[in-house]
Amino acid sequence: MNDCDFKSRVDFVSDEILEMIIDGGFQVGDKLPNELEIAKDLNVGRSTVREAIKKLESQNILVIKQGAGTFISDKKGLMDDPMGFRFFRDKNKLVRDIIEVRMMIEPTIAEMAALNSDREDIEQIKYFCKKVEEDILKNRSHTKNDILFHTAIAKSSKNKVISNLIPIINKSIEMSIDITDNKLVSTTIECHKEILEAISEHNPIAAKDAMTLHIIYNRKYISEKLSKIE
Amino acid sequence: MNDCDFKSRVDFVSDEILEMIIDGGFQVGDKLPNELEIAKDLNVGRSTVREAIKKLESQNILVIKQGAGTFISDKKGLMDDPMGFRFFRDKNKLVRDIIEVRMMIEPTIAEMAALNSDREDIEQIKYFCKKVEEDILKNRSHTKNDILFHTAIAKSSKNKVISNLIPIINKSIEMSIDITDNKLVSTTIECHKEILEAISEHNPIAAKDAMTLHIIYNRKYISEKLSKIE
Repeated sequence: MNDCDFKSRVDFVSDEILEMIIDGGFQVGDKLPNELEIAKDLNVGRSTVREAIKKLESQNILVIKQGAGTFISDKKGLMDDPMGFRFFRDKNKLVRDIIEVRMMIEPTIAEMAALNSDREDIEQIKYFCKKVEEDILKNRSHTKNDILFHTAIAKSSKNKVISNLIPIINKSIEMSIDITDNKLVSTTIECHKEILEAISEHNPIAAKDAMTLHIIYNRKYISEKLSKIE
Repeated sequence: MNDCDFKSRVDFVSDEILEMIIDGGFQVGDKLPNELEIAKDLNVGRSTVREAIKKLESQNILVIKQGAGTFISDKKGLMDDPMGFRFFRDKNKLVRDIIEVRMMIEPTIAEMAALNSDREDIEQIKYFCKKVEEDILKNRSHTKNDILFHTAIAKSSKNKVISNLIPIINKSIEMSIDITDNKLVSTTIECHKEILEAISEHNPIAAKDAMTLHIIYNRKYISEKLSKIE
């Protein structure tokens, strides 16, 4: 068997395992049958199964825990950088393009959150809203809690595809805070509170407006800042 | 050295290679230095480098061509299924959620295409518009050319983050054509022509309206169809 044959067998086996996971009702954290069983089932060698499992691990579908076995990853196949942001060389173009996309999606996300959030969702949003304010008042970095605030809103939309767009919002927040150099902090606190209030009151129009304003302030400041550099 | 050490060394080496690709100005199709050179540079064993390269191949960052060497993949680290659509068990919820997200992004994409497209972009959009019509009139599947039509529009927006959202649009088109069972074909031809015309005339409002209409027709039909099944 040459290298090419081996590679296509690995691809075949990883596809089979993936199908088994999806159709077999495996949940996050469930343990995969061991290498030997899979090898027998699919009538292939153990080394092929081992390679296939490694491939699915690099794709964040499985996680191998030494000595314990192989498990379904909680990342559900979502890559750490699904949009390939690492590959953007022009970071100023990235920050502009990404906030443009954020403007397309996040006001509607806030609107959907106002319509679909339950009590628990609102508690989460409130919690991170408070955390961001605390961070800012104590002069700590608020990036992490800011991301969690927006993530809680996105999850409240109850649209599962949106959950997978969260990395876009996160990257935008990270780059925006970096560029605006903490100049927008008091506006951020105000905007966050308005968004929270509108979602809590299940007012979709107010939620959309508040989120739109929040992004406009960021975009305006970023534009001004970048036009000075360029 | 135990398995854990090996794994963290592989992670270290794959991060180093990735950094080398990004900072070293490597372009799609460029050849990576060979295993031995990388092993020497990073002071690690060849087997570690080999594993790291395999990992980057499963992440669509590198492509290994047997006998020729290792090259920068044209997929730029974008996975075949970056949104993890394979993992959605409820396909009816997926088709609804995905068209909701498409409605958030694609009208604005059409607007941006009307503003930013050049002559070559418009030629591409026109070409695939014609191809879809031919497919439909000859009773062939138009899924592939329909996807290429919408992809050409997304690329004309000149927003690089949008290019990475194309898999959402593609999946939506694929599932919509499947569900609407070719019932919307004449409307599709009309809508596509209107979108093309507006973009060709660099009329952003008309382009946005035409795309919005196109998605509304799809969503309406899909809703009706799903409500009968459920």
